Amino acid sequence: MANPTAAMLVIGDEILSGRTQDANTHHLAQELTKAGIDLREVRVVPDVQSEIVEAVNTLRAKYTHVFTSGGIGPTHDDITADSIAAAFGVSIGIRADARDLLASNYAGGEADLTEARLRMARIPEGAKLIVNAISKAPGFSMENVHVMAGVPAIFVVMLEALLPSLTHGQPVVSRTIRLDMPESQVAEALADIANDFADLSIGSYPFSMYGKYGTNIVVRGIDETLVNDAAAAVALAFGDYANDD
Amino acid sequence: MANPTAAMLVIGDEILSGRTQDANTHHLAQELTKAGIDLREVRVVPDVQSEIVEAVNTLRAKYTHVFTSGGIGPTHDDITADSIAAAFGVSIGIRADARDLLASNYAGGEADLTEARLRMARIPEGAKLIVNAISKAPGFSMENVHVMAGVPAIFVVMLEALLPSLTHGQPVVSRTIRLDMPESQVAEALADIANDFADLSIGSYPFSMYGKYGTNIVVRGIDETLVNDAAAAVALAFGDYANDD
Repeated sequence: MANPTAAMLVIGDEILSGRTQDANTHHLAQELTKAGIDLREVRVVPDVQSEIVEAVNTLRAKYTHVFTSGGIGPTHDDITADSIAAAFGVSIGIRADARDLLASNYAGGEADLTEARLRMARIPEGAKLIVNAISKAPGFSMENVHVMAGVPAIFVVMLEALLPSLTHGQPVVSRTIRLDMPESQVAEALADIANDFADLSIGSYPFSMYGKYGTNIVVRGIDETLVNDAAAAVALAFGDYANDD
Repeated sequence: MANPTAAMLVIGDEILSGRTQDANTHHLAQELTKAGIDLREVRVVPDVQSEIVEAVNTLRAKYTHVFTSGGIGPTHDDITADSIAAAFGVSIGIRADARDLLASNYAGGEADLTEARLRMARIPEGAKLIVNAISKAPGFSMENVHVMAGVPAIFVVMLEALLPSLTHGQPVVSRTIRLDMPESQVAEALADIANDFADLSIGSYPFSMYGKYGTNIVVRGIDETLVNDAAAAVALAFGDYANDD
């Protein structure tokens, strides 16, 4: 059976303006690879409800899972929860279990829940909470859309809480062979190998180090024996130029 | 007049697998902000022609410019140029000026142009070359789609060569005010200010440092006077908690 698929949707003007560099996508990509869930697409959209709704509805129809990051804090520009409710056509309101979680984060409990803080307890009808081990304000899963925080440390713990509950696929195995030759000299022999191992993904990534050009060959696939066979074929084809990293 | 708009399309399995963290988007975002071109959307797609074609055609219809990175090297997995030709419905072949540029990069000139290297001289019909000051193999602009390399150092010099030729908008001015209070305590007063300055983008970004919670307020807009007025309103509203960074 084919592995589950996924898309990432990053919500945030601060990424598009260049103020902040998105780190959550890279973390998600690594964790999903380990879990055998294939990340197939990433989108970054601004804090604009119509853009979020359109992206969510396109991606949730196309992939097994959609992961989002950003826009679930207490301020006026945090519009992700409302946008998800709009995308699914459901209502949204303050939920008791989410409010209790929030209250547990403040010294004064319930009494400390200002209007702004209560915004973080607004959850679309029918969603399932995602635990936030750091600051309590929960994320949520609405069907196959998993809504998490933009702050990287919180994104990490939310994903850690969520991932074990999703069906995993077969992890993709990868082998990297470093070749001490420029990519253009690698291309022909590599194309033949890629042809022989059509079920694998074989990528080539040029680099330069100490003024010398080299190429990393990355062989990826679910069948470990096949991946090892392809890596061996690469090593054989390039002989002394090959270094198995 | 409204500023030109843009989307970034990152092409590469290595980003989606988590092997590599994309750095080109962040660089592009910063450069476009300086040039007054609004980056509105980012997509990352795999090395699959149908996915690239669909993304290119959607984005080029929606934004003034589309910038792409990745997939223009010499190997079998470099399919961006062919995908762009397919997206525009034009032919693609080895172009003399691109071949001459490539030849200039090798000691043996023309004689060193192997079949693999010549792949990098394949340019869609009607495109304009983008200079590559590092390794010569050019990028190209096909109408409003600007196709550049994935290797960050080369992406940087290609963008440097391209950007002066594009119509710039009014640069967005931003001011950041650091508040020594958690985001949830900032929310209500900030919403009022955002309301008063509806033409500006006012974002709030929580952080923690040395175990204390703080919030960066970022005011952005084209009208510098208005941006300064809004920043002053934030500083006034939060008094001693405000630090103008």
